[in-house]
Amino acid sequence: MVKVAIMGYGTVGSGVYEIIKENSFEKEALNPIGVKYILDIRDFPDHPEKELFTKDFDDILGDDEVYCVVEAMGGLHPAYEFTKSLLEKGKNVVTSNKELVATYGPELLAIAKEKNVNYLFEASVGGGIPIIKPMCSSLMSNKIEKIIGILNGTTNFILTEMITKNKDFDDALADAQQKGYAERNPAADVEGHDACRKLAILSSLAWGNYVDYKDIVTEGITEITLDDVKYAEKFGYVIKLIGYAEKKDKVFARVSPMLVSKSYPLSGVDDVFNAIVVKGNYLGTSMFYGRGAGKFPTASAIVADVIESVRHLNANKAYLEWKPSEEGYMLDIADSVSSYFVRCDAKKEQIEELFGKVSFADGIKDGELAFITPKMTEGEFTQKIGDLAKSFIRVLEA
Amino acid sequence: MVKVAIMGYGTVGSGVYEIIKENSFEKEALNPIGVKYILDIRDFPDHPEKELFTKDFDDILGDDEVYCVVEAMGGLHPAYEFTKSLLEKGKNVVTSNKELVATYGPELLAIAKEKNVNYLFEASVGGGIPIIKPMCSSLMSNKIEKIIGILNGTTNFILTEMITKNKDFDDALADAQQKGYAERNPAADVEGHDACRKLAILSSLAWGNYVDYKDIVTEGITEITLDDVKYAEKFGYVIKLIGYAEKKDKVFARVSPMLVSKSYPLSGVDDVFNAIVVKGNYLGTSMFYGRGAGKFPTASAIVADVIESVRHLNANKAYLEWKPSEEGYMLDIADSVSSYFVRCDAKKEQIEELFGKVSFADGIKDGELAFITPKMTEGEFTQKIGDLAKSFIRVLEA
Repeated sequence: MVKVAIMGYGTVGSGVYEIIKENSFEKEALNPIGVKYILDIRDFPDHPEKELFTKDFDDILGDDEVYCVVEAMGGLHPAYEFTKSLLEKGKNVVTSNKELVATYGPELLAIAKEKNVNYLFEASVGGGIPIIKPMCSSLMSNKIEKIIGILNGTTNFILTEMITKNKDFDDALADAQQKGYAERNPAADVEGHDACRKLAILSSLAWGNYVDYKDIVTEGITEITLDDVKYAEKFGYVIKLIGYAEKKDKVFARVSPMLVSKSYPLSGVDDVFNAIVVKGNYLGTSMFYGRGAGKFPTASAIVADVIESVRHLNANKAYLEWKPSEEGYMLDIADSVSSYFVRCDAKKEQIEELFGKVSFADGIKDGELAFITPKMTEGEFTQKIGDLAKSFIRVLEA
Repeated sequence: MVKVAIMGYGTVGSGVYEIIKENSFEKEALNPIGVKYILDIRDFPDHPEKELFTKDFDDILGDDEVYCVVEAMGGLHPAYEFTKSLLEKGKNVVTSNKELVATYGPELLAIAKEKNVNYLFEASVGGGIPIIKPMCSSLMSNKIEKIIGILNGTTNFILTEMITKNKDFDDALADAQQKGYAERNPAADVEGHDACRKLAILSSLAWGNYVDYKDIVTEGITEITLDDVKYAEKFGYVIKLIGYAEKKDKVFARVSPMLVSKSYPLSGVDDVFNAIVVKGNYLGTSMFYGRGAGKFPTASAIVADVIESVRHLNANKAYLEWKPSEEGYMLDIADSVSSYFVRCDAKKEQIEELFGKVSFADGIKDGELAFITPKMTEGEFTQKIGDLAKSFIRVLEA
């Protein structure tokens, strides 16, 4: 039996325990898997296997029988220090901790490679949706050109409520909180930080050089109003929080609300579902869709990674490497190209003088004008629009 | 350099050649890959590497330097005999040949296991969409409960034309033929045989026992009329050719047109796109979407499998095993459960007497009645409806 330790017995950690308890995956992993330790600072006196619990990380680190460790603690510290020590000790580590992977990925992956162990993180993006593994295997014959994802279930739920039930942002957020989809402090979700870290991971994977999440322009959905939703509808779009990354000469990555055409497959991805479109040079458009969060979807992705690491017990591990990015690797947002949905109080003539032919929609408010510009760089757009725009939202090109 | 041979230089085979020619995938495969032979009965005198061509299979079989062979010949013979000889000789084989995998999979996989080589067939289902690999790795922590797929691009194109452009079947088929999506003899697509073989492969993978495609009830779309499309619309559905498989006590698999609710993610999968919904006990619903056919999508899936087999040069291979199915493994269609869209000339009272409360739509033709029954076994339905139905279509439960 191959022994596993679980660090962090919250929602995800307990899900991992329950799945492995129900099935040792002897057939799938070519060896039965069993849990030897659970690390948590809390007490679980009523747990049926309370002898597994420890508060001492060194119990796990020092036990040569522990082959693979699940890090489900979340947060940067001490998850980083623990993970580093475990990898240095030659143990495989599996995680759902997107913050840790997005921050310390290059270092931790380098240690894993040096020690011939795996650092696996399928569960860090898209919950249970297989996306990391397909990108590292099935799609490796392709050059990836674009990644376009709905990467955060909480914001997608809020936007879906706004679009389909005409609720404003605050009401929809309150609903999300009541259903347990949003934290009491929802900033990480609604400000786009969670999606930003996931996009950093996908971009680093797709193009091999580390994309620091701090270099990704990130806007949340807190400024989106019901009027925006209605305008989008008039133009045939829905508003989604989109993680967008592409590689041409440089890599460009941005998290922001976008207008998504109703004919584009991502437009139908509603509620807490996530979906990731990957465009490859040979494959064209593919999309991966499913539950991006939740106890068992996330835990099942972790367990699949555990099985993966056990299955290759005596083989070379699947190395991922994120090389450092040189200065100038990332495209400046001013050079990114999009069209823009704009609300302003200007006159049509004024707009046409600035942008040429544009699509107008009747204003919802008196004197207001709404239009979509032709494609141009964001630098050109912001220069042209100057102070005229009351708000603008980028339009996703299908 | 690891040497590869390509058997069959048609659309897919030439795509494989071109992709490997452009990129040796040294980084991805941990070894550079190169093509040593191309087997085809035709001559290609103008090919830039005409020295690669051979008409003699023994050139490939007898060359110890050939590590992996791409079988892109199609058809059962001699593809079967060639594949068997190659696996027995200890060579890895990669294929897009769904007919061969669905027919001889158990035997060929057993030989591959015995010889510690791979027989890989990602490209046989869903073209370039990663589905086989995710099912064998990312989803292996789940018990798969259902597979619901749009598995054939040709029929999906025809149905999309019928639904969105109001063309009848014959016109839509003619269009598909003109665009090169359908063969001059379209039977394999429009009668559902192609989808049936793909569903057999997915069902065998999902539950580990071989599902013989001959045991899958298969109905095509040749009987679908524009009136059916209009009725479906009235009820809030679209008609799709659906490969449906589930495992409860027994495994059930069927290919048939179905009414798909417009709120279900598969309903938006149009034109030649394919998509496969997989329901796992932990993951819930996930969906894989993309181009199900075409030169480069299919070839890129083959090349990914070649890379996979080369990457694990000195490791144990990824074994798949399809055990034989015992008598009674498959559920009889009479015991399968669905609701049914029915067109008939009966009176409402007569229908309500038979089925209780049903949803009626106004008949499109004089005197015609259209309705959707409650859920029941197909045995009960056929017994109740007797001769009354002019036609019926099963309704997909979301």
